[in-house]
Parts: sequence; C-alpha cells; structure tokens
Amino acid sequence: MTAAKGQGGKGSAKKSKLITPRDEDYNRWYTDVVLQSELADYSPVKGCMVIRPDGYGLWEQMRDVLDRMFRETGHRNAYFPLFIPEGFLKKEAEHVEGFAPECAVVTHGGGKKLEEPLVVRPTSETIMYSMFAKWIMSYRDLPLKLNQWANIVRWEMRTRLFLRTTEFLWQEGHTAHETHEESETECLDMLEVYARFAEDYMAVPVIKGTKSEKEKFAGALVTYCVEAMMQDRRALQAGTSHDLGQNFARAFDVKFQDREGTMAHVWQTSWGVSTRLIGAMVMAHGDDAGLVLPPRLAPTQVVIVPIWRGDDQKALVAEKAETLGRVLTDAGVRTEVDLREQYKPGYKFSHWELKGVPLRLELGPRDLEAGQVFAARRDSGEKQPIADGDLAVRVPELLEEIQQGIFQSALAYREENTHLVDSYDELKQIMDSTCGFVHAHWCGSAACEEKVQSETKASIRCIPFEPLARDGEGEGACIVCGKSSPCRVIFDKAY
Amino acid sequence: MTAAKGQGGKGSAKKSKLITPRDEDYNRWYTDVVLQSELADYSPVKGCMVIRPDGYGLWEQMRDVLDRMFRETGHRNAYFPLFIPEGFLKKEAEHVEGFAPECAVVTHGGGKKLEEPLVVRPTSETIMYSMFAKWIMSYRDLPLKLNQWANIVRWEMRTRLFLRTTEFLWQEGHTAHETHEESETECLDMLEVYARFAEDYMAVPVIKGTKSEKEKFAGALVTYCVEAMMQDRRALQAGTSHDLGQNFARAFDVKFQDREGTMAHVWQTSWGVSTRLIGAMVMAHGDDAGLVLPPRLAPTQVVIVPIWRGDDQKALVAEKAETLGRVLTDAGVRTEVDLREQYKPGYKFSHWELKGVPLRLELGPRDLEAGQVFAARRDSGEKQPIADGDLAVRVPELLEEIQQGIFQSALAYREENTHLVDSYDELKQIMDSTCGFVHAHWCGSAACEEKVQSETKASIRCIPFEPLARDGEGEGACIVCGKSSPCRVIFDKAY
Repeated sequence: MTAAKGQGGKGSAKKSKLITPRDEDYNRWYTDVVLQSELADYSPVKGCMVIRPDGYGLWEQMRDVLDRMFRETGHRNAYFPLFIPEGFLKKEAEHVEGFAPECAVVTHGGGKKLEEPLVVRPTSETIMYSMFAKWIMSYRDLPLKLNQWANIVRWEMRTRLFLRTTEFLWQEGHTAHETHEESETECLDMLEVYARFAEDYMAVPVIKGTKSEKEKFAGALVTYCVEAMMQDRRALQAGTSHDLGQNFARAFDVKFQDREGTMAHVWQTSWGVSTRLIGAMVMAHGDDAGLVLPPRLAPTQVVIVPIWRGDDQKALVAEKAETLGRVLTDAGVRTEVDLREQYKPGYKFSHWELKGVPLRLELGPRDLEAGQVFAARRDSGEKQPIADGDLAVRVPELLEEIQQGIFQSALAYREENTHLVDSYDELKQIMDSTCGFVHAHWCGSAACEEKVQSETKASIRCIPFEPLARDGEGEGACIVCGKSSPCRVIFDKAY
Repeated sequence: MTAAKGQGGKGSAKKSKLITPRDEDYNRWYTDVVLQSELADYSPVKGCMVIRPDGYGLWEQMRDVLDRMFRETGHRNAYFPLFIPEGFLKKEAEHVEGFAPECAVVTHGGGKKLEEPLVVRPTSETIMYSMFAKWIMSYRDLPLKLNQWANIVRWEMRTRLFLRTTEFLWQEGHTAHETHEESETECLDMLEVYARFAEDYMAVPVIKGTKSEKEKFAGALVTYCVEAMMQDRRALQAGTSHDLGQNFARAFDVKFQDREGTMAHVWQTSWGVSTRLIGAMVMAHGDDAGLVLPPRLAPTQVVIVPIWRGDDQKALVAEKAETLGRVLTDAGVRTEVDLREQYKPGYKFSHWELKGVPLRLELGPRDLEAGQVFAARRDSGEKQPIADGDLAVRVPELLEEIQQGIFQSALAYREENTHLVDSYDELKQIMDSTCGFVHAHWCGSAACEEKVQSETKASIRCIPFEPLARDGEGEGACIVCGKSSPCRVIFDKAY
C-alpha cells in the first residue's frame, strides 16, 4: 500500500481476516477480495469462472449504463452466431494470425465429425461482416451501427478472475460507414463514451491514446484505447476502439453503391469492453477490508443495519429501519435493510464492507429517540449523523461525494505514480521497483519497443492524445536509441 | 387461413407481395414474415441464425418483463461457463442419454488437443450443480434460487428460424430447496409465471399441464409445461418447469445439514423459456401482411406517419408529428415518427404493417386543421379519429384494447379447433386434415402413446391440470387400447 492510499481514507477501514493485505501480496489480495466478496468463483472448467449474483449484478449495472450510452449514440443491439467457420477467420491475414492461436475449436456436432471445424468466437468481425455484405447495398443503408452483448472465448494459459479468463462477457460494437472520415469520428466518439463511462461511473481515471503497431488489434489500421492505473501502479486497458479501415470490407466484400453510383468498400470500426472492467474496479478502489464500489454502479448503494438489545427494542428498531428503507427506495436509492437475526451488528458491518456497499446507515434505540441515523462512508470510514427528515436529500448527496471522492483519490494516486523520464536507466529502475506510468520519448521503431519489453516487461500502453501538463517539450530523443521522437509515450507493466 | 381468422380483423390487412399467404403455404408464410420483417436472417453457419435489431429488440422487451417477474419471485441472476466437461454430463444417466446426441464438442483449444473434450452447454444443470455442491452447506443456504440468461447449443438436423436452431438464447432458472414440497411449489409457481407471461404479455393463451414420461426432460421426475396453439392448429411448447427431485443432487452430491443436523440431498427445480417464444408470437398473431405484435411487448407501439404535398405542408405536418410524438413518449408510449422523405405514405403504411407495429397514426394537412389524427389498428385495420388533446389517454387505451383483442382472437381460435374425441379413428382423421387440440382418453402406457405418434405424428402435448369445461366425464377408456383412463390428455402435432 502506498503512502497516498495509506494516509487517505482507505487506511481507516478495518482489515478483514479473510483478505491478504495489499502490501503483503497484491495479487493474493485481489483474488481474496473477488472470492470472499462473492463476485466470482473458480469453476471446474479450466480457465473459466462463475460470475456469482453479486458480480453479475454489478455487470448488469454496467451493461445498463453502457447500453443507454450506445443507444443515445445511435446504435442498435443484435445477436450473431457463437460459431464461426474456420475459413472465415483466415480471410483477413493479420486477423487470423492474431486470433487463431487462442481459439477453441468445435470439431464434432450431433455425434459426427464436422466437415469444416467451427471456431468459438474470439471476436465477431468475420461472422458479422459476412452478413453486412448481404445487407448493405447502397449509401442509404449506411451508416450501419450495431452492438452485441455476448460471451467470448479466447484460450488462455494463465488466467485470473475477471482480468483474464478463457470465457468472458463483453459488448462489441461494429459499424460501417461511407467515408474514412466518418468511421474515424465514430471510432473516437466511442472511445470518448468509454472514457466517460470509466471516469463518471467506474470512478477510474483513464488516459486516451493510440496503441503502437505492435499492440494494435489484429486487422485494424489503428487501435485507440483508454488506460487506467491499478493500485499496484500497473496499467489496465479499460476499452479499445478500432479503426478497421477497409481491411475487413475487402476480405468480406462489403461494398455499397456510393452517391455517385460507384461501388465502393465500406469503412468500418469495432470497439469493446468486457467483464474485465469489474476487475479494474476492484483493483482501483478496493482496500484491505474488501471491495469499495462506486455508488453509481453499486447494485446496493446503502445498507441499513439496525442495532437492538432484546425483543422490545428489536421490534421498534426493525420497524423504523424498514420505514427509512422505503424512504430511500422511493428517493431512487438502491437500499438493503439487513434484518438478519442470526448475526450481530459487528458481523454485518464487516460483511457489507467486504461487499463494498458505499454507505452504511446504523440505527440504534438512541438514534430512534434522537430521530436520526449514523452514516458511515465505506471509502473513508467517516461517520456522521443524519436527521431522519434529511435522509432523502442527504444520502444521495453523500453518495455523490463518495463517487467524486474515490475518483479524486484514484486520480491523485495516478498523478503521484506518473514519471517524466528521460533515460532508459530510470525507466528500468522504476519497472524494477514500483512500476508506474512512465512518460518517455520513443522513436517509433518496433526494435526499441521490443527491447524495452523484453528487458523490463514494460510495454507501450499508449501514445497519449494529450501530453502531460508538466511536459512542455513536444519533441525529444528516444530513450533507447537516441533518435528523434515526436512525443512521449506511456510505458508500464500491464494486466 | 381458417374461417375464424379470415372473417375476423386479420382479413382486412392488405396482402404483402413479399409474403406467401398463410392458406397457400403456412411454413413459407412463417419464414417470409420472419425474414421480410427483419426479425432474423440465415447465417453462414449451418443451423444458426442472426437475430437482427428488430428481433433482438423484441427479445429485450421479453427479457426485461421476465427478468422482473423472476426478481419479484426471489431469484437472482448469475453466469456459469459455456463449456461443460464431457464427464459431467454422464453423471446423471437419463440426462446424458437425452443430451449427448445433440452436443457440439470442443476438442481443441489454444492449438492443442484437449485431455477431456468440452461440451458446449445444451443446458446447465450439471455445471451449475457442481457449484451448488460447493456453496450449499446448511439449510441456512437454502433456498438457492438462481437464473441465467445465456446462449445454448443443441445440434439440430432440421432447423427453422427461432423455432429450432442449433444456437438459441434463453433463460434457465435453477433452484435448490430443503423439501420436495418446497421444490414442487417453486416448480408450479414458475409455470404460473410462464403462463402469465404468455397470456398477459405475448397475448397467447396457454394450457398448463404435465408431460408424459416420454416427453419429460432428461433427468427430471416430472416436467410441467405450457402449450399454445399456432394458426395452423399445431401445438408449440411455450415453457417448461422441471421437478428434478434429488436426481441431480445425488449425481453431484449436493447435500446440506438439515434443521435436525442430518446431512440430506437438496430438492431441485429447473425451468426455461427461449427465443423460440418469438416464433410463437409470430405464428399466433401474424397475418398475410406480416407481423402483428402484442402492444405490451412491441419495441415500437405506435408509429406516426405524416402525409404532405409540397414543402409548405411538409414543414407544418412534420413539426406537428414530432410534437405529438413527444406527447406520446412522455405518456410512456414507445413511439416512432417516420419522417423519411424518400418514401410515400403508402409504402410507409405497408412497411410498419409488415413490422407489426400495433397502432399507426396518420397525420395530414386536413387532420392538422381539425386538430386530430387518424388511428389505424394493426390487428383489425379499423380506423378512427383521435383529437390531439385526447392522444395521451386514448392511445394507451387503444393499445390495451388491441392487447386484449388479439388474446381473445387467439383464444377463440383455439376453442374452435379443440375437439373432444372418443375414438382413435376420429383422432386420425383430425390429424390427417386440420390438426388441432384433441382431448382424448389415454391409459398411460408408452405403447399406446407411441402407436399414436408413429401412426399420426401427433404426440401427447400434456396432461392438462384442468379438464375442458365441456368435458364433465372424468374417467374414460383409452382411445387406443380401451383400458381405463383417469382423464383426457391433449394430442396434437407439434413444433
């Protein structure tokens, strides 16, 4: 745990016996939190996980927000087959090279060997665009802007819950346009949607940028991405948007009659985010007591824990707790009232802290008399009384304060762990010790990129759209070979 | 087309040139409607279809209603792996026998042959219950009531869009309980949810009943079902709910410590409906002009078609159309305003009829002056003026009238095509000519059931919970062997 996080609010949360502290072993901490908070569990199928109700509820919140954003930007949902004929993958040369090694292959169906093996979709460009070719005739059919919510399979050797699993859930947007200008705009618009989603909902600050040739999507002209920093100062890619140019249009013969009556290939984009983002939220905000969920996405935003001694108190306090629960629900707050009798309040406190519920309201006999509750913030541990009559106003305000607070905390953490670096030695030293976002000059050659990666395990996360505010330089010299470099790029180890 | 449907409202819809009339070829009519209305399309993968935006939008409406019903009855969503180790399927003897012949099998992953092949889930009992065994310790963990929205693969030789495809989308509920009484109640409660959904939302009347041993789910003690009649008088199973007893609990060792401290196997249920229901809606309500969607599920409930001559009229009419569109949207009505300039009103009328939008509002210059619109019902073709000021009240009322109207029409059709039959010859004659629901006595033997099926292609759709009102008899004699029969069962050819 860094000083920044330790001295901030996060340090005040009690440690959980079920969870390895972050500064002892960050990787074990992550796995403990995911398992103990019951977001997910290992399954008997190698590399696949079970998303438990609390994890799936979180995904549903995320899905609903993203789905609304996609609709507002003119996209419609559809559903394409899980299986892709093996030959389809081969039609785009880079694409097959990138994905073939990761594929799960169905060779038998209905008790018989198949004539052509079927690949379980590792992404759906090929199957979708074979249909686009059928549907698109004229410029009047454009733009075609579809999105699909689906499961995806990519064979992985080393898996981690949510972050890297053989099967995962995602959305994939696929669009076709008349001009490259239009498809580039779409591509950047959707990157902006992802950035807004990450920052405004997940409370995770991101850097927008372009991937290097080496890191781009197999088959794209350009891949844009948003990159986030986790609490171990490593990077996590939180969304990508691909300018596919006419690569797939040529491979799948997706043509249209343009406004001049000429047949032309469409310009395409694809973009996606996955259940991986759940892992990002856990790693960006969690502490040694468990999850810390951003209020806008938390399936349960507030839990009311009644405190009583004896049956007389119990009846009164429980009744009041339910009344206040209804007040909050009516105010649009996702509220749970924990009336379980077999558990003591202290156990319930830990339970809901582990689950990451943003705000806990404690209600005892004396609060009842005083006409108030005690509100405890999950992020900072701060407590404050709220008068019953203020609840419907004050609780939504507090939830917004928490939302902003954890975003600001994550932003400050990233700033503290971002370095302007002008020598390869300094980069090596950072990657050997703490990791972090290293803004350094790079000449653009694959050789220098690979040298850094093989020697330090750091990759180029992106070529950022905006330089660091404190970097006024612009051009410079590649930290590896010394040749001229147009701008700094961001190096870090990544998930 | 039967007399009943022909003389009713449906006859008034214009024929579409794109669609084969029902009385010419019902099967081609169905396929034409699904393709031309753009609900779905054939894919390049044998047996798999593409669900296009209009079809997927319909599924989303259905999913949202069902999801709310499941939550209200205490279920939570989760997600389990797509892949199932082949060995799991074999743990329940009947189950593997039922499903193994339909499985798609993954034999290679990541470029290597797998040690144990993986089956693409044909249903998720086995993978889910292996996890239940891990999660359930004591009666305090019960009941466990989960639901999953997922894609399913069952290898099919002869496929039909929505009705029978190799891959389909569905929900599968899976629950575990302390006692058989409790699991039976769950099973029947969920059947009731399906019946309510079919009748109140899909506007498709259903008969609740029990499947014969031959027709029950592979691995269940008892399968309950809801059965609907299509417009060719054949039956379509619109949902099943399985009392699994302790069969899977024993196979997967799902045990709990009961209230007496003894270890016992849980009692389980599973239940599901699929995208097949979209096919049922098409076949139950559609006519020769295309889809007829029930208002409660129609993604677009109302379309406003402005009618103009010349640019002056256009500006005025278009503006008013948009204003009225906002009025309806604010009143909670899912409304589209069709302002497309390249199409004439007549084309737009046919277009939205084909798409099954329940109500069309026509707005011309004279309507503008009169302060009204002309409303045309999709189901009956009836037209009536509605004053602008009444729109927000009258349109929702009309949508409800349409919802009830198409339900009553489907119910009347079923009643007219339901027969009380006391001889095998009469059953044969009905199956040779019109088909229909034949309520006849059956001794309960598999031999008689199979004889009927092999000779007439009619199967026992269910043993209904309630006898036909006009059947006062109770016991009787099996129409095949003459032995005693406790009640009538329903025979029909089925999808």
